[in-house]
Parts: sequence; C-alpha cells; structure tokens
Amino acid sequence: MRSGTGATAELFYEDLEPGREFDLGETVVDDARMRAFAAEFDPQWYHLDDEIAATGQFGRVTASGWYTASTFMRLYVDAVLSRAAADASPGVEELRWTAPVYAGDRLTGRLTVIDRAPSRARPGLGTVTLAGTLRCVQRDTDVLRTRFRGWFAMRSAA
Amino acid sequence: MRSGTGATAELFYEDLEPGREFDLGETVVDDARMRAFAAEFDPQWYHLDDEIAATGQFGRVTASGWYTASTFMRLYVDAVLSRAAADASPGVEELRWTAPVYAGDRLTGRLTVIDRAPSRARPGLGTVTLAGTLRCVQRDTDVLRTRFRGWFAMRSAA
Repeated sequence: MRSGTGATAELFYEDLEPGREFDLGETVVDDARMRAFAAEFDPQWYHLDDEIAATGQFGRVTASGWYTASTFMRLYVDAVLSRAAADASPGVEELRWTAPVYAGDRLTGRLTVIDRAPSRARPGLGTVTLAGTLRCVQRDTDVLRTRFRGWFAMRSAA
Repeated sequence: MRSGTGATAELFYEDLEPGREFDLGETVVDDARMRAFAAEFDPQWYHLDDEIAATGQFGRVTASGWYTASTFMRLYVDAVLSRAAADASPGVEELRWTAPVYAGDRLTGRLTVIDRAPSRARPGLGTVTLAGTLRCVQRDTDVLRTRFRGWFAMRSAA
C-alpha cells in the first residue's frame, strides 16, 4: 500500500486513534512566495500593496488566508500523508483565520485525531476527522484553526 | 471607501441582500499552474505523478483541493471583491470537494448571499454569510461547494 507521496505506507486507519497528536513541524513565511500566491489567487491590497496596507488595520501586508491554509497542507503532507495510506478528502468543516500572518512568521503545525468511522460507501477505507492548528512562534498565537476529514485505508484491507 | 483591489467601492453591506446572486465568471484549469501549485503545497502522487494516477480511482492527475479553492477565490476577487467595500474574512464554515478537477476543465463560479448581520465587535461593518460553487462546464457537475463569511463596510458608515 502506497502513501500519499508514493512511499510504502506505515500509517493506516487503525493507527489514527482519537486523541493521537502529530507535530507537523515548522515553516517560515517567505515574503516573495506569499506575494506571488496573492498575485495569482487573491490580488487584494491587503496582500500586495505596501503603501495602502501601512494605513490599514494590520499595518503591513498580510498573507492571503488561502496561502496560510495551503501552507498548513504542505506541513500535513510532509509530516503525515507522506507516510500514510491516505485517499482523498471529502472536505473541510471549519477553517478559521484567527490572526494575521506576515512575511517572516515562523509557523508550527499540530494535528489531532478527533474521531473516526469505517466508510459505508467505500469498503476498506475509514473516514477520520482531524483538527489542525498553525501557530506563530514569534507572537505565540494561533493563526489558523481547521477541522476536516480524510479517508485512510485500513491495514486489515491492505 | 476602497474596494478589495483599491478601486472606489460600489458594493457595500447594504447591497448584499440575502438571496442576491453573483455570476463569478469562468476560468480554465491550466495544467502547468495546477502542477506547480501541487509541487509547492500538496506534493501527493494524485496531483503530480501521471503514471501512478493512471492506475488510481480518477484515471489521471487531479488538482489539489486547495488549488480548486484558491481558483474560486480568484474568481470571487475579480467579480465581487474588486468592487466591494470588503474587509477581512473570519473564516469558512464549509468547503466540500464534490468531484475531481482535471487540467483543461472549464469552471464557472456562482455566489449567493445567505445571511447578514451588523458586527457587534466592529461598528460600521457587517458580517455576510455567502455560499459559493464551482461547476465544471464539460461534465456539468459541481466540483466545489463552500459557505463562508466576510466583513463588509456599511455605506452608511463610509
């Protein structure tokens, strides 16, 4: 059975017990990549225009919320999906941007298994509900909170 | 009062009556950009490896769900936020990937105002709940469904 990145999977549905936590590691928000993302997907002055942003509520340009969410995804892939028997995701139940994100921010990710159940529609798979956070180290504050579901293969079916 | 892209705002909280709909226009999923996004944020074989994906449930590589969500955001900025007195967004209540997205897909966006209320915490602003969809024209099927909130300035406060 293959992991999300094509390696041999070692994490299966059975391993994702409710309460289990994963440290997703750390990343630093790169100014150029943050702006390139905003230019492509979210070209608002909040994310691109230094002059206007200096007069706004956050004092300088902030990351697009979708850049922050995508950054969380990358940490999740590297720390978990790269070794998990992961199938697709049906979606997200909650995504909150709880504080602004700036270039240079060091963000650490955490993931907690909330709940799980075998899939009725897809035998051999289970649906796992996960809660994730991204925290800014410098300001010691959460910047993103999410709750989402993923399908994972059962070891017993592998 | 400034729009999300720095133009003169013409859409205010008062204009966002529940039931009002917006056509967000159309975009075509570009193969190279879809893959570049996956390489940066979601490097799973589903989104990057043609050989493995050919043997998977979707038959070929699919867009990362975060690429699809970000594509929706771009349509929303171009069609609405570029002329709206938009402030930040507190977050997303629902985000569902209801069908796979492939390179070459023509996607059309729609947005519906669901509900609204003046913000108690931030005078002069109102919170608007919006529902959005992205639809694949070729396969006549929704690929993304979302429900989220945004803050908009009141004309009366401008």
